[in-house]
Amino acid sequence: MERSNTVFIGRKPVLNYVLACMTLFKSGQENVIVKARGQSISRAVDVVEVLKNRFMPDVEVAEIKIGTEQVQSEERSMPSNVSTIEIMLKP
Amino acid sequence: MERSNTVFIGRKPVLNYVLACMTLFKSGQENVIVKARGQSISRAVDVVEVLKNRFMPDVEVAEIKIGTEQVQSEERSMPSNVSTIEIMLKP
Repeated sequence: MERSNTVFIGRKPVLNYVLACMTLFKSGQENVIVKARGQSISRAVDVVEVLKNRFMPDVEVAEIKIGTEQVQSEERSMPSNVSTIEIMLKP
Repeated sequence: MERSNTVFIGRKPVLNYVLACMTLFKSGQENVIVKARGQSISRAVDVVEVLKNRFMPDVEVAEIKIGTEQVQSEERSMPSNVSTIEIMLKP
């Protein structure tokens, strides 16, 4: 479920996602959710920390959820589990 | 501050750290804290998810904190920032 207040973290540089969060806040979003899975989880935490420490010091981490999703990869017939994180931010 | 109820996540396989958490719970610890920084943050989430889903389904994530630490690397004279995560577990 992709929502318009969600920034999904991939393999781009951290600052790209920081800018995406700032754009959402400036557009009037009350909450911004940073989502990632697998190896990108570390980058999601980087995005939130850079946003808070360098650009929007008033932003608060309202909630952090972790979980597991099943992913069907092309190479393997069995679905594999991948960890997920959701970090909810408030301005 | 390393405490005896803390599992610090490094580059070993996920199951090593899962076992470390289970050993702490079996020794009578009320809380176990899983800590990681930088690229190991993703593995810390994996450890908690594998522990919950495969070995100790009653374990609850009581709190998740993220932050930033300064690290002095040998190659660079300036300290660099690294993201951190602390996941507190209750049996």
